Amino acid sequence: MHAISFIQDLAVIMLVAGMVTILFHRFKQPVVLGYILAGFIIGPHTPPFGLIHDEQTIKTLAELGVIFLMFCLGLEFSLRKLFKVGATAFVAAFLEIGLMIWVGWEIGQFFGWSNMDSLFLGGILAISSTTIIIKALGDLKMKNERFAQLIFGVLIVEDILGIGIIALLSGIAVSGTVETGEVFSTVGKLSLFMIVALVVGILLVPRLLAYVAQFESNEMLLITVLGLCFGFCLLVVKLEYSMVLGAFLIGAIMAESRQLVQIERLVEPVRDLFSAIFFVAIGLLIEPQVLVEYAWPIAVITLAVIVGKVISCSLGAFLAGNDGRTSLRVGMGLSQIGEFSFIIAALGMTLQVTSTFLYPVAVAVSAITTLSTPYLIRVADPLSQRLAGWIPERVARVFGLYGDWLRSIQPQGQNVMLAAMIRKIVLQIGINLALVVAIFLASAWFAGTLAAYLAPWVAQENLQKGLIWGGALLVSLPFLIAAYRKLKALSMLLAELGVRPEKAGRHTVRVRRVVAELIPLLSLAGILLLLMGLSASILPTLELLVVIALLAAAVIALLWRWFIRVHTRMQVALMETLEHGQEPNGH
Amino acid sequence: MHAISFIQDLAVIMLVAGMVTILFHRFKQPVVLGYILAGFIIGPHTPPFGLIHDEQTIKTLAELGVIFLMFCLGLEFSLRKLFKVGATAFVAAFLEIGLMIWVGWEIGQFFGWSNMDSLFLGGILAISSTTIIIKALGDLKMKNERFAQLIFGVLIVEDILGIGIIALLSGIAVSGTVETGEVFSTVGKLSLFMIVALVVGILLVPRLLAYVAQFESNEMLLITVLGLCFGFCLLVVKLEYSMVLGAFLIGAIMAESRQLVQIERLVEPVRDLFSAIFFVAIGLLIEPQVLVEYAWPIAVITLAVIVGKVISCSLGAFLAGNDGRTSLRVGMGLSQIGEFSFIIAALGMTLQVTSTFLYPVAVAVSAITTLSTPYLIRVADPLSQRLAGWIPERVARVFGLYGDWLRSIQPQGQNVMLAAMIRKIVLQIGINLALVVAIFLASAWFAGTLAAYLAPWVAQENLQKGLIWGGALLVSLPFLIAAYRKLKALSMLLAELGVRPEKAGRHTVRVRRVVAELIPLLSLAGILLLLMGLSASILPTLELLVVIALLAAAVIALLWRWFIRVHTRMQVALMETLEHGQEPNGH
Repeated sequence: MHAISFIQDLAVIMLVAGMVTILFHRFKQPVVLGYILAGFIIGPHTPPFGLIHDEQTIKTLAELGVIFLMFCLGLEFSLRKLFKVGATAFVAAFLEIGLMIWVGWEIGQFFGWSNMDSLFLGGILAISSTTIIIKALGDLKMKNERFAQLIFGVLIVEDILGIGIIALLSGIAVSGTVETGEVFSTVGKLSLFMIVALVVGILLVPRLLAYVAQFESNEMLLITVLGLCFGFCLLVVKLEYSMVLGAFLIGAIMAESRQLVQIERLVEPVRDLFSAIFFVAIGLLIEPQVLVEYAWPIAVITLAVIVGKVISCSLGAFLAGNDGRTSLRVGMGLSQIGEFSFIIAALGMTLQVTSTFLYPVAVAVSAITTLSTPYLIRVADPLSQRLAGWIPERVARVFGLYGDWLRSIQPQGQNVMLAAMIRKIVLQIGINLALVVAIFLASAWFAGTLAAYLAPWVAQENLQKGLIWGGALLVSLPFLIAAYRKLKALSMLLAELGVRPEKAGRHTVRVRRVVAELIPLLSLAGILLLLMGLSASILPTLELLVVIALLAAAVIALLWRWFIRVHTRMQVALMETLEHGQEPNGH
Repeated sequence: MHAISFIQDLAVIMLVAGMVTILFHRFKQPVVLGYILAGFIIGPHTPPFGLIHDEQTIKTLAELGVIFLMFCLGLEFSLRKLFKVGATAFVAAFLEIGLMIWVGWEIGQFFGWSNMDSLFLGGILAISSTTIIIKALGDLKMKNERFAQLIFGVLIVEDILGIGIIALLSGIAVSGTVETGEVFSTVGKLSLFMIVALVVGILLVPRLLAYVAQFESNEMLLITVLGLCFGFCLLVVKLEYSMVLGAFLIGAIMAESRQLVQIERLVEPVRDLFSAIFFVAIGLLIEPQVLVEYAWPIAVITLAVIVGKVISCSLGAFLAGNDGRTSLRVGMGLSQIGEFSFIIAALGMTLQVTSTFLYPVAVAVSAITTLSTPYLIRVADPLSQRLAGWIPERVARVFGLYGDWLRSIQPQGQNVMLAAMIRKIVLQIGINLALVVAIFLASAWFAGTLAAYLAPWVAQENLQKGLIWGGALLVSLPFLIAAYRKLKALSMLLAELGVRPEKAGRHTVRVRRVVAELIPLLSLAGILLLLMGLSASILPTLELLVVIALLAAAVIALLWRWFIRVHTRMQVALMETLEHGQEPNGH
């Protein structure tokens, strides 16, 4: 019977995983390594013999493990936290990821590996491991120190960039080439998709969850959460992104729900079950021969991970204005690779573009760097003191001056508020425009289906296109109007700041008004042109466009207030969810 | 890719199940029916089309659902509760199960179904549904009334008997025949296995769980629990019992652990996930045609379930000494079939001994009786009043006299304590003898392997057998001695009670001593003869047996006190676990 061999596999996995992890926990080593070792022990490559019969089903469940891992990562992620992390997080994360992808690529090329292997190696080395770091800092009782907070900030930015890396690598793996234009187009589409998914998701999902939660049935809430999770993953797959991305996004959306704590409590056992299977499945893949054969690359890559991450993250933290000691501690804390690397390595294998040795190599490097992390964190403090003693005084003075200079260029007093205001307005404009672009892209995407529905009523193809295009415009109007109003506010602000009376003299007021009127109109015109380009396939003839434009103008004139009200209501709902969902949980 | 079609299946299952159950919950219907309907909707037999691609994997996960359902049933089960339920539970459960199996068999024969179908139909009708009853009583806010407590008692006994039914049906399905001797042998072996598993399990498992729990990691506790669960299921399968039995038993063992509440909290989401898949998978199997074709049997069986269960359970409750109103309420509460029936129907399908129509018929009957249960409970009270009015006065007086008579034969005062003492001693003797029998059976089972180990040291086959048999005797000695001592205590008690001075006169003391000495010795001799019969395959020659007996006598003489100490320590450990595990959780 099929089921019994499968239960036997599960029994073996759970029993061996349980025993090894108890041992690992007893000797204060990360449980994840225990799982991988358990997989290695029961795997086909170690004596006495392969204990797993139904490898296909185990692999399927391991993929569920990845989904649940990323979903829970999303649940722990928080947009609010992302807005709050400081410059340190962004600078360090960008530096680290950029450097490590390059280092990975160069190492791959040095060992004569294929371009795809080298590229995936770069991806594998790029992202540090949240679980390992949290575990290590918890063990060392350093979770609440300043450098730990900085590390968590870097990890949040890394999550988002990691999602981007996964999307990019999938795209490149499918198309087989790396072109700058394509990279930009992929990143652009991905950002667009993420913004739209987050806005729409945060408007709908927490409300649905609140409705279900009022029945006070854990079972129903869990089933709803899992239904949304898998459903969204499926949608994402249909859009040709990775399922992993979908799991993370829907997790991040649910993180804004008021039921977050309850959801985490319900999903955690499920995640633990499947992620254990995932990590054991990783161990199953390890061939001792491969490890021996690739001992040299493993050593080089391990060294590169530790040195590269310490340097890039420390430098990033320092450049963003932290003192040397804190910077070094941040760098040393982030010097390992973990679950993201496994996911990227698994991606390469699933897409069949990487060689089989890459996975075990990644696992080996992750194991070594995981074990070294606690020691590195502990050694950071004495090392920074010794470094301070070694550095020539003149260099130290330059470092000190950099810190002073950085503080001097920070906006002060009123300017801090102004900068925050401008940032907020730009963000709002960006989100509104992203929604508009998404509406037009979606209309173009579904044009065929829509036209088929319209066909019995409207025979002429041009008219069909006109209706679809006009419909898209109508739906976008609230967002276009909002974007226009925010643009106007922004340009007034900029005119006030940019056109100073001491330069423009008695024309000040007039110049300011021209600037304040011109910028939004020009930008809107630019946006409309862009939209036309994006929706080229459903663009009707010029005459029809003029008609549509006139109609739109009439609609705008008539319903201006109503559009503003609709948009404001949505914005308020979004903001309420973002702010409410967090507070009761202490996030 | 395999995984994507699987995720798609999961997404469809969870989404549809989520939506339907929200609707069902909204209209206060059992969620389980919602799942089944969801499965029916997405199944291959309903338009628009089959939405499930990877049916094999879904079926495997559904089997996991059964395991988790039974495991959680075991967690909610409690030996202590079983000891506490009164006569009502036993009488009602035995009457109900006996009658329903017979009714099921007769109905099957009436419709000309095969013997195996008829027998499984009996099994399907035998056991009521715990989840449905708890749900219905909760909705009606009657959980704390006396008749509800009686119902829960019946359900606990039914769980144990249900496990027996599953084991019996599996045995019969494999062998193809029903013989009284075989039934007794199956029941005997099953009871033996359950006693040994419970004793050994309760000695070991709660200690292991307490050790793991001290690491305060939910993940490790969950993995350990699942490892034990699947591992035990595997062991049970190797012993040719059903996995379902294993899951229930290990659940009942863990129910005695102090970590019960934590374990339930961790396992519940996993159970909800997989049991949802199980119930949806049931719905997938429903063919509307079958329901139409078998409308007549479905109607008959539904009527039989309701009438049969109401009569048998009410009668059982009444015979055990409850008043008419309470008895009727107990009967009406138990008048449905549910998850156990699905499991038995699934067993028949997996073993390929039942026809395909049996499953949908069981589902249909369960659906109808589930829906009728709340109405029946509500109608019980008015009905009992009306019945009281209808019944002729003379019959009513007979009923009243029965109650008086029953109360008169209950042990009173000192006799209550005496009866409790005798019951306890008999239980202890039974458990010790069961362990001894199990040790000898296990030695006989593993004799081949053991002999192979012994071969290099002991060449002669007879000597090998002697060593194995002697070893088994040595290991059993603590239990044999304990059984002997309890037998002696029992016979002293019986001699005291049975040999009254008014009958035996001046010989009283001597007769009592003879009785007190003779009974244990005769029983022990009988037990040893039984053991020899059971271990016939490893019995050495008579000369060797005499040698072994002499050796054993010497060992007993030397280590008498030590054996007693070892046994007492084990008994204390067992009792401590049984008593401690319960209290902090308010069971």
